[in-house]
Amino acid sequence: MNKHLIVSDEIHDFLADNSPHADPSPLPWRLEDVVRGLRQSREHAQKIRFHGEVRELPSGEVMGQIMEGLAAVLFPTHYGRPDLSEESIDYFVGITLHATLTQLFEQVRRGLLFNASPGDTSDHKHAAREIARRFARQLPDIRAVLVADLHAAQQGDPAARSISEILLCYPGFRAVLNYRLANSLYLLGAPFLARIISNLAYASTGIDIHPGAQIGPEFFIDHGSGVVIGETSIIGQRVRIYQAVTLGAKSFPVDEEGQLIKGKERHPIIEDDVVIYAGATILGRITIGRGSVIGGNVWLMHSVPPGSRISQADNQSH
Amino acid sequence: MNKHLIVSDEIHDFLADNSPHADPSPLPWRLEDVVRGLRQSREHAQKIRFHGEVRELPSGEVMGQIMEGLAAVLFPTHYGRPDLSEESIDYFVGITLHATLTQLFEQVRRGLLFNASPGDTSDHKHAAREIARRFARQLPDIRAVLVADLHAAQQGDPAARSISEILLCYPGFRAVLNYRLANSLYLLGAPFLARIISNLAYASTGIDIHPGAQIGPEFFIDHGSGVVIGETSIIGQRVRIYQAVTLGAKSFPVDEEGQLIKGKERHPIIEDDVVIYAGATILGRITIGRGSVIGGNVWLMHSVPPGSRISQADNQSH
Amino acid sequence: MNKHLIVSDEIHDFLADNSPHADPSPLPWRLEDVVRGLRQSREHAQKIRFHGEVRELPSGEVMGQIMEGLAAVLFPTHYGRPDLSEESIDYFVGITLHATLTQLFEQVRRGLLFNASPGDTSDHKHAAREIARRFARQLPDIRAVLVADLHAAQQGDPAARSISEILLCYPGFRAVLNYRLANSLYLLGAPFLARIISNLAYASTGIDIHPGAQIGPEFFIDHGSGVVIGETSIIGQRVRIYQAVTLGAKSFPVDEEGQLIKGKERHPIIEDDVVIYAGATILGRITIGRGSVIGGNVWLMHSVPPGSRISQADNQSH
Amino acid sequence: MNKHLIVSDEIHDFLADNSPHADPSPLPWRLEDVVRGLRQSREHAQKIRFHGEVRELPSGEVMGQIMEGLAAVLFPTHYGRPDLSEESIDYFVGITLHATLTQLFEQVRRGLLFNASPGDTSDHKHAAREIARRFARQLPDIRAVLVADLHAAQQGDPAARSISEILLCYPGFRAVLNYRLANSLYLLGAPFLARIISNLAYASTGIDIHPGAQIGPEFFIDHGSGVVIGETSIIGQRVRIYQAVTLGAKSFPVDEEGQLIKGKERHPIIEDDVVIYAGATILGRITIGRGSVIGGNVWLMHSVPPGSRISQADNQSH
Amino acid sequence: MNKHLIVSDEIHDFLADNSPHADPSPLPWRLEDVVRGLRQSREHAQKIRFHGEVRELPSGEVMGQIMEGLAAVLFPTHYGRPDLSEESIDYFVGITLHATLTQLFEQVRRGLLFNASPGDTSDHKHAAREIARRFARQLPDIRAVLVADLHAAQQGDPAARSISEILLCYPGFRAVLNYRLANSLYLLGAPFLARIISNLAYASTGIDIHPGAQIGPEFFIDHGSGVVIGETSIIGQRVRIYQAVTLGAKSFPVDEEGQLIKGKERHPIIEDDVVIYAGATILGRITIGRGSVIGGNVWLMHSVPPGSRISQADNQSH
Amino acid sequence: MNKHLIVSDEIHDFLADNSPHADPSPLPWRLEDVVRGLRQSREHAQKIRFHGEVRELPSGEVMGQIMEGLAAVLFPTHYGRPDLSEESIDYFVGITLHATLTQLFEQVRRGLLFNASPGDTSDHKHAAREIARRFARQLPDIRAVLVADLHAAQQGDPAARSISEILLCYPGFRAVLNYRLANSLYLLGAPFLARIISNLAYASTGIDIHPGAQIGPEFFIDHGSGVVIGETSIIGQRVRIYQAVTLGAKSFPVDEEGQLIKGKERHPIIEDDVVIYAGATILGRITIGRGSVIGGNVWLMHSVPPGSRISQADNQSH
Repeated sequence: MNKHLIVSDEIHDFLADNSPHADPSPLPWRLEDVVRGLRQSREHAQKIRFHGEVRELPSGEVMGQIMEGLAAVLFPTHYGRPDLSEESIDYFVGITLHATLTQLFEQVRRGLLFNASPGDTSDHKHAAREIARRFARQLPDIRAVLVADLHAAQQGDPAARSISEILLCYPGFRAVLNYRLANSLYLLGAPFLARIISNLAYASTGIDIHPGAQIGPEFFIDHGSGVVIGETSIIGQRVRIYQAVTLGAKSFPVDEEGQLIKGKERHPIIEDDVVIYAGATILGRITIGRGSVIGGNVWLMHSVPPGSRISQADNQSH
Repeated sequence: MNKHLIVSDEIHDFLADNSPHADPSPLPWRLEDVVRGLRQSREHAQKIRFHGEVRELPSGEVMGQIMEGLAAVLFPTHYGRPDLSEESIDYFVGITLHATLTQLFEQVRRGLLFNASPGDTSDHKHAAREIARRFARQLPDIRAVLVADLHAAQQGDPAARSISEILLCYPGFRAVLNYRLANSLYLLGAPFLARIISNLAYASTGIDIHPGAQIGPEFFIDHGSGVVIGETSIIGQRVRIYQAVTLGAKSFPVDEEGQLIKGKERHPIIEDDVVIYAGATILGRITIGRGSVIGGNVWLMHSVPPGSRISQADNQSH
Repeated sequence: MNKHLIVSDEIHDFLADNSPHADPSPLPWRLEDVVRGLRQSREHAQKIRFHGEVRELPSGEVMGQIMEGLAAVLFPTHYGRPDLSEESIDYFVGITLHATLTQLFEQVRRGLLFNASPGDTSDHKHAAREIARRFARQLPDIRAVLVADLHAAQQGDPAARSISEILLCYPGFRAVLNYRLANSLYLLGAPFLARIISNLAYASTGIDIHPGAQIGPEFFIDHGSGVVIGETSIIGQRVRIYQAVTLGAKSFPVDEEGQLIKGKERHPIIEDDVVIYAGATILGRITIGRGSVIGGNVWLMHSVPPGSRISQADNQSH
Repeated sequence: MNKHLIVSDEIHDFLADNSPHADPSPLPWRLEDVVRGLRQSREHAQKIRFHGEVRELPSGEVMGQIMEGLAAVLFPTHYGRPDLSEESIDYFVGITLHATLTQLFEQVRRGLLFNASPGDTSDHKHAAREIARRFARQLPDIRAVLVADLHAAQQGDPAARSISEILLCYPGFRAVLNYRLANSLYLLGAPFLARIISNLAYASTGIDIHPGAQIGPEFFIDHGSGVVIGETSIIGQRVRIYQAVTLGAKSFPVDEEGQLIKGKERHPIIEDDVVIYAGATILGRITIGRGSVIGGNVWLMHSVPPGSRISQADNQSH
Repeated sequence: MNKHLIVSDEIHDFLADNSPHADPSPLPWRLEDVVRGLRQSREHAQKIRFHGEVRELPSGEVMGQIMEGLAAVLFPTHYGRPDLSEESIDYFVGITLHATLTQLFEQVRRGLLFNASPGDTSDHKHAAREIARRFARQLPDIRAVLVADLHAAQQGDPAARSISEILLCYPGFRAVLNYRLANSLYLLGAPFLARIISNLAYASTGIDIHPGAQIGPEFFIDHGSGVVIGETSIIGQRVRIYQAVTLGAKSFPVDEEGQLIKGKERHPIIEDDVVIYAGATILGRITIGRGSVIGGNVWLMHSVPPGSRISQADNQSH
Repeated sequence: MNKHLIVSDEIHDFLADNSPHADPSPLPWRLEDVVRGLRQSREHAQKIRFHGEVRELPSGEVMGQIMEGLAAVLFPTHYGRPDLSEESIDYFVGITLHATLTQLFEQVRRGLLFNASPGDTSDHKHAAREIARRFARQLPDIRAVLVADLHAAQQGDPAARSISEILLCYPGFRAVLNYRLANSLYLLGAPFLARIISNLAYASTGIDIHPGAQIGPEFFIDHGSGVVIGETSIIGQRVRIYQAVTLGAKSFPVDEEGQLIKGKERHPIIEDDVVIYAGATILGRITIGRGSVIGGNVWLMHSVPPGSRISQADNQSH
């Protein structure tokens, strides 16, 4: 249709204005070259092809919103709205749960889709909905364990003046909250989402708890920056841990072709009532016996019996 | 699990704090009563039941984003990013088109779902994608007509200093832009979305063009507040219209049961090169002959031959 | 304390850098002069003094949020969240109501404070809470009238294809919704807020209904841009009005000192089943009898009996 | 560098995943075709070339922020922060002025750049700064005239209960505020920005006042939707105008080549103390004598002497 | 009122549509069960009841805004607006102070309310205002100490190129800034807010300084991740600390009932001019004598005299 | 002009209202005193004066947006939009690159301006543009190295299940990504921006890599909180580092006047294939020979030959 339009000079000028500096010489960035270079970098090793729809990845940003929603559902006045009254609190919990589960369902679906085997063409809607539903049903029990964790924090830190202070000011508690939710999703079959959740906790607390770890109730991490708890760790009840403690793996077994064997049990077992002070590094599938106290900065690669007291070698004065 | 936890007094107090004033007497809003009253109001006449998934409505907010995307695609430096260079402009157009069509596809799908007959269980994905794709293919032609409309505005208003001024400062042009996009979707089978688009134009321009109207190129509305152009209007080329002009229906035929007969041709035909001044009201399936000039505030319900000059009766001085 | 600090040259330089161009000569805006000029303009006629706290004005922005909340409470899937399910809808209504009433209470309180007489030192919390509570209790009845208005729109416009289209695309309905809420607040004793609400409707619909007007159920405004309905208008049931209709005052009586007498009945009474077409102007405390039809662009300043048909004088052809 | 990297199968798979469906067949939108079509539409009449930098257009969005800043500077508690105290108000005015003038300076510069002649290579920084500075200096005087306009609104509308109500709820006042600021910029040499400002007022008030019009103090527009005041209109003191009034041009003189002659005086002169009721249309360079009253819906194209009373011809009853 | 409305079939259908799938069988999430479970978890140990108003908690989000405001007030061009000129800087400082103190006042009030004893019915407005006012008065002195801290950073890190780099790129400085503000609030009687502030610093720097610690001027933390400084620590002038240093408590004395004794002095005293290298852990109420150097990863639980040089025991090579 | 306006009592009252509590006695904050105190603190050591324009600092917030843009350009579906298709991906990369480089250019310019010598009056536009252009050209090579780093992470952590998990959940990778971009800018002559980028990485990962460090491909940091890599460190290929590892300086040489000598090589050299476990501290210009393994918590200040195995001294059991 536009072929036969008679266009005034003004329109001519405008169209020229509208499409700035057509002269190709002063191009500043050479965008085309960079775009091409990046495309080649992406295509470099590309052998397998995809047919059909785009597989969208889970979104870290949406997972962050989901975690805020879940925290608000569990502790509405502290992590939700501070103005909730007795008559409004259940409405808040109900609609926040609805919105959060709806978002979670979609993210679980994406995670399943992404981990699926190449030939799998299902959309995983049913499985994702079932995971989200079961997860929701576990929330009251998760809350009960978190209340026990609050109790432990209250008992374990002389500086803690109130439960509200622990909820609002203790990174250790927030990391444990994220862990308990991530662990539930991990066990229900959504490990990718669980890892995204633990990374979100890490970004704001510096505490890195793998969602595969097993941790009993009344668990307390004080300060917590630099704490690392590995995938196959097992931690009992009433355990207390300080900043920069590592529960790690000693060595990584490889198979005959030199590839890492994944998923094997390789992290410590910490029995009930153990305390581990700042900077201690405990490596390998060893057992720290019930009630032991591990001193700061200790480097430990062998099991110790219940009731042990381990500390670093003496310092030197010059 | 929480049954057996031993909880300190402090925890007791906290839990009480956390769930404010459990005493039911001072409830301020009686939310429960109002929620129940509103539910009853919703359920009052409810007879037909739904089974299965929620049918989500199209979103006015998302449609607003889509219209901004389409305007940016058509006139990138005026409605998109003012800093676009020759080397970046196509990248901008391409990704904006991708994002906008993806959003549009979903909204079209919702619109189709909503208008579907009760027994229809398809998800309309295929139809929605096809509508979006065809719509995209029409965009260059729509742009050409809009350039002709710009040309008409430039010719028709002595106050217009530049094409950029028309693009950025003329509500009439923005309303016509929305109309041309809405009309395309209307003809492709998405009338609900088309109506949402015309309502968006109305909200910021006060101009109400039904997407079912047919309007030729080089159309210019000056000022425009209060202009109404009805569903079955037909407007030729090079027509100029001023504020508060109505092209409306004279009467609404009803069927034997007294119900309105919908969709019948009931609005005026305006032939090429007609000018209609502010406040004129033209009603019914009449024809305004080519080149006529209709004066301000005229109330017209019969056809006039080409070249007519119609004006209001004389005023009275007291 | 800072007097005795020894500061390095680098710090010296930095501090100089940190507080840009201390040389007073190149000051660009002469902010101080303009600030002083504006202060003098504010103080010019200032005679009465205030003691104590700042009286904060109601906020148009917050009132906009409140109106969105109320619309969502009344029609949750259309104006709230499109994804609401049967099990989630009441939670949504409840918490939205809580949040909205909490905001409304504060705005009502500000409005009352502002309109209070000089000697009044109460904070109006009790009165504001009572107004908000009563308003909430009226919401189900307001919804019922709005459903009747939807019914009238459905009956009155052949272009309306569904109730959803009316809810999402008809500015007339949105203006009536705002009016019905504003009128309730007006009658409960919050006229300032009521006016802010009617202005919000005006900004997006071009329809100006004073919250003091009385309007019966099944009221329908089509298109609506330019409609003005004055403070003391009375409109019966099943009335239909088109764009640019004015129900205004004829003259403004002044008292002995030449001051306007405010609040007197000065706008028309429109009886049941009247239709008023586009652009008609009806002025003064006159009565349009039941079932009358007023034509477009008519200028009417005297009462007409029931069943009247009024239209503009004939046009002139040249 | 990447040529020599040995990449595992996992990486291979990942890279394939990362770049979805490389098979070109199922491309949904054919973006490339549409992008090319739109580029051709842009290039169609392109003859003049640009060399060098992109000329960025003024931004409607930024101009909207500037107008909010200026309104806040003029009436800090109504349009700025409602919590301002005596000791904080000047700080607020000062920094808002600084931020607003800084934004305005850049927008003025862009406007000048855009209107510049082809050979002009200056960046207009000096001129833009000077315009912004002079504009700032006029703000106290502009505020004084706006206070007079408030006074007129207070006198002119029996429904107005307080000055705050006029500031927060009267679209007519907001349109006049925008006009007075736009007119100042228009006279200082920034007509493009001035037009953007008047369009912003139009979008929220439906009132279209060209920034070139001259309007005396104590001006009041009631309701206002559909009011149009043309570029060369002259309005005296204490004039009152109602909704849908047009002060327009009668005809558009063309030069020998049929091009519109721009900028000529073609709109009415309204002398002091005139009242013009709703829907009146006054066209051409005519004079409405001092103290006249023009009735609603009148269509007027000849001058009237001082003290005239003009109204529409009688209606017809059928 | 809605009982007598006659509603069309269309309205019937719509209302059914509007309230999706009323059939209770396919409810996906069983929200009601989860909401009830969570309510029971909250109510489990609830014994004490509240009467009257909701006690709103301080908000971490608002405290974050307050900290940004205070940082901007102290270093306007670095943490506020980079475009501040000599004539605008004081306006910026003044209004930012006003807005920040207003927010702080409300948060202090909430904190006081929350920590109040059960019988206390005052609203703490007076005390909160007094705390905010005194805090404001201390800001210039706090700034002077922070300038000394900048000086120390400049002296202590060979990689620091400018003061601006320290202000914008050194997490250690930002943590100290937060500490100095938190410490002031802590001493003025707002310990809960102080803890929220230190947690905010922790989240972005990994540095955990309890607001109760006493720290002299010219304090420098380099890198800083994992640094922990306990509640009763005392640090002299010109102390330098590296990442992962802990100043902690050795043991937690309990009272006769096994409850922690809170508030007792239990953290180290670090005298002037001490340097503590990365990873050192210093526990208990011991004294590190003036000018000592504590090596990396050292675990120290006894006092050392002035001028000590302490380092870790030798490593082992295998 | 405002001198001669006659203003009604209502206006008088309003103006009084508008300027709250003029009585100076109850001023709450004494803003003026604090503003003056802070100004004096800023001016305290001010000796050098600036003439002319404000020098705006680079913005941490904008640098954060730039880093998001660059990450999206490098890995579009993981860090950009998850819905990108084969046909849309290059458009996304192109426009994101354009927008990001445009922002980067301005920030580089500010950085150069800020570091410039006092007499330098150029605006550094040319240099900044050149740096941005060269940086863009390096992006494909930087991506290739990052793919090698992903490969190393995949090989080095048994818990890593997919490349997507590493991209979305591994703070170590994100820190390395930021480092590689910062290092490029550092070498191109924008060290200030490079430091801001490394601080951004630090804030979300707790990993502090100075942009001046040299790090070979296939570098992997696991967990990472507390890792510090100093300015003059040199790291070979295939090096693996765990949380809380420090590569630091041993001592800081001062010149004759006691000032730190800046920029000297003072950090370790780590040869190819070295592994350094959690908490190890390696200080000074020493060399860790190829293939060595450094145990956790080790404190090391001397070079070790290739193939060394270093671990902490034994612990003590009590």
